[in-house]
Amino acid sequence: MNDLEAGKYSMRGVSSSKSEVHDALEGLSRGLYPKAFCKVIPDVLAGNPDYCLVMHADGAGTKSSLAYNYWKRTGDLGVWEGIAQDAIVMNLDDLLCVGITGNILLSSTIGRNKRLVPGEVIKAIIQGGRHFCDKMKALGIPLELTGGETADVGDLVRTVIVDSTVCARIRQDLVIDNARIREGDVVVGLASFGQTSYEDAYNSGMGSNGLTSARHDVFDKRMARVFPESYDDGMPRDMAYCGTRDLMDVEPETGLTYGKLVLSPTRTYAPVIRAIMESCRSSVHGMVHCTGGGQTKVLHFIDNLHVIKDNLFPAPPLFRRIQEISGTPWKEMYTVFNMGHRMELYVPAETAPAICSIASGFNLEAQVIGRVEARAGLRVTIESPYGKFTYDKNE
Amino acid sequence: MNDLEAGKYSMRGVSSSKSEVHDALEGLSRGLYPKAFCKVIPDVLAGNPDYCLVMHADGAGTKSSLAYNYWKRTGDLGVWEGIAQDAIVMNLDDLLCVGITGNILLSSTIGRNKRLVPGEVIKAIIQGGRHFCDKMKALGIPLELTGGETADVGDLVRTVIVDSTVCARIRQDLVIDNARIREGDVVVGLASFGQTSYEDAYNSGMGSNGLTSARHDVFDKRMARVFPESYDDGMPRDMAYCGTRDLMDVEPETGLTYGKLVLSPTRTYAPVIRAIMESCRSSVHGMVHCTGGGQTKVLHFIDNLHVIKDNLFPAPPLFRRIQEISGTPWKEMYTVFNMGHRMELYVPAETAPAICSIASGFNLEAQVIGRVEARAGLRVTIESPYGKFTYDKNE
Repeated sequence: MNDLEAGKYSMRGVSSSKSEVHDALEGLSRGLYPKAFCKVIPDVLAGNPDYCLVMHADGAGTKSSLAYNYWKRTGDLGVWEGIAQDAIVMNLDDLLCVGITGNILLSSTIGRNKRLVPGEVIKAIIQGGRHFCDKMKALGIPLELTGGETADVGDLVRTVIVDSTVCARIRQDLVIDNARIREGDVVVGLASFGQTSYEDAYNSGMGSNGLTSARHDVFDKRMARVFPESYDDGMPRDMAYCGTRDLMDVEPETGLTYGKLVLSPTRTYAPVIRAIMESCRSSVHGMVHCTGGGQTKVLHFIDNLHVIKDNLFPAPPLFRRIQEISGTPWKEMYTVFNMGHRMELYVPAETAPAICSIASGFNLEAQVIGRVEARAGLRVTIESPYGKFTYDKNE
Repeated sequence: MNDLEAGKYSMRGVSSSKSEVHDALEGLSRGLYPKAFCKVIPDVLAGNPDYCLVMHADGAGTKSSLAYNYWKRTGDLGVWEGIAQDAIVMNLDDLLCVGITGNILLSSTIGRNKRLVPGEVIKAIIQGGRHFCDKMKALGIPLELTGGETADVGDLVRTVIVDSTVCARIRQDLVIDNARIREGDVVVGLASFGQTSYEDAYNSGMGSNGLTSARHDVFDKRMARVFPESYDDGMPRDMAYCGTRDLMDVEPETGLTYGKLVLSPTRTYAPVIRAIMESCRSSVHGMVHCTGGGQTKVLHFIDNLHVIKDNLFPAPPLFRRIQEISGTPWKEMYTVFNMGHRMELYVPAETAPAICSIASGFNLEAQVIGRVEARAGLRVTIESPYGKFTYDKNE
């Protein structure tokens, strides 16, 4: 990412990388498996040396700001169920990457401005979370709602922020720790878009990261005028809602509004990963949830390897529209958005067909999107219809 | 609380009660012990029928907005360690109320506006939390840092919001569930102010609730002018920073600045409660952490009893100054602030001296502040130098 683009991120009050946060964590333990997707610690709760624990936190990010606009505009409380799902799945699917698919405790933390966000919205979020957990339970993924906190903090939160924290326990010998990712592995990607057998509608693939970019790059100045509470008006004027679309404009390829597309709830891969774990856990060398960092996220979890992604899914319509409207360089698009698959598995080539077949049973597209080669130093290369891009560690 | 005052709260984007939130929780289980201070659930992590789990979330609330102002004004990064402590203790001391004093997992969630809150602040918060955990461990309270999330969400968060989530496991027969609170019990209060043997400085007793009121009622319009990012400028102008003091003005009785007093880190009672649990757990019928709701918080956890608080600690200087400056009715003061003790134990009269003696060993003041009588219906009565006030359930 060049300095100009990094500056655009920074002026919008977000990070393009998390280098500052990593610096802030100096001296803190990385846990039992330093390369694992989540920090894994010994089982201090039950004291069993064969087990370990993961506690993990994430949220819906600025997607809730767009949900607020959409709800104000349409009165549709249903968008808040999507936000509850976003906050949960951003955690749940991180847990999947270490091999956890059950016995998960879930707590939510909501901060709101009570002046703008009434009780019916809080109810829609909390009951939406409950509904999602019920759905997961029926699909064999037990998620235990433990409660949470709703704080009225209007001096801090412009509208509403929705976060979740999860806690889970797993046998140590079942942990997927990314340390076995090796030369010769293939990368199987699970599509982020389309409609799985366990979803009620078309999913744009959006997920819950890159929302600050997507919101300001897609939607136009009317959003700032009508909903000044939906963004940081301290950012330079030309960075705020500098797109060309309205919430209700229809994206021609999907026939859906831009509002609906960008608010598409983050798909969980939990039922699929559960099935994969049941039949081929020991062949899964690693898993990466392609959230912040997009297709380069794997750079945090391996060393001295070259991941070549030369058979990616076609970029779904929403991401192509975001690129067209914003003019964001394609190289950068792959670091901000998942661009087609939000979950990738590192496995021996012979395991790939079984994984694709399991996914297919859920009407989820899966394919070998790349491979791992040996290299002195760490690199990801993307070969796409839009160009060939290389990303080195610390670039 | 009358309508006018409820309106003032609401216009500042906060709640005077949590009735809306309770409504939002409709249909959600209250756990194994419906009257317990925290929701307690079966041990779904390790599956042991003799054990149970608590997962709990809370945060520093709008205290971080004041810390931001103080840090901008003085450059003192030290205030952020206090905010880290606030977010942790608001959880830790809730756990104490169900009898948990160890084997606690801790995760933090920080949301910031990167444009205004640089990496050095995030580092001060994260390392401050680590320092507090080290201190607790040395005092016999194991708190395990599991990690957490720092999100750049400037479109949602004006400055910075700091939340924590905890998870703990305890034997079911050790749970304090408030169900044994009965006629004839006395109420032992543990002082919120002064300086315990495990604190480095005088504590004003502030805690982490009532901060929206305290900040706007104490500090004057200069705060709004200099730090417009520190509050919701959508609230009516006459509600915002309508006090008479500056951050650096000295409170005469304590000789400390108002900034320091209001930012005084939330005291934990963990080392003291741990000692009390060791010697007289079976005599403790209930415990209440007097946070939101202040001295009336117990109304959520009992039925058909009358709690008479007629021997409270003298109100500490800061709370008297807040009342003087704001003109808040005393009856309301007792529902917003702890007014002198932030932890209360319900015990048989004969147990009180042992508890006071243990507290005294930590240089913590403790005294019998009231008693429990039978009553048809639920009531708290406060007899104070400022009047006699009654609070009925649902008032």
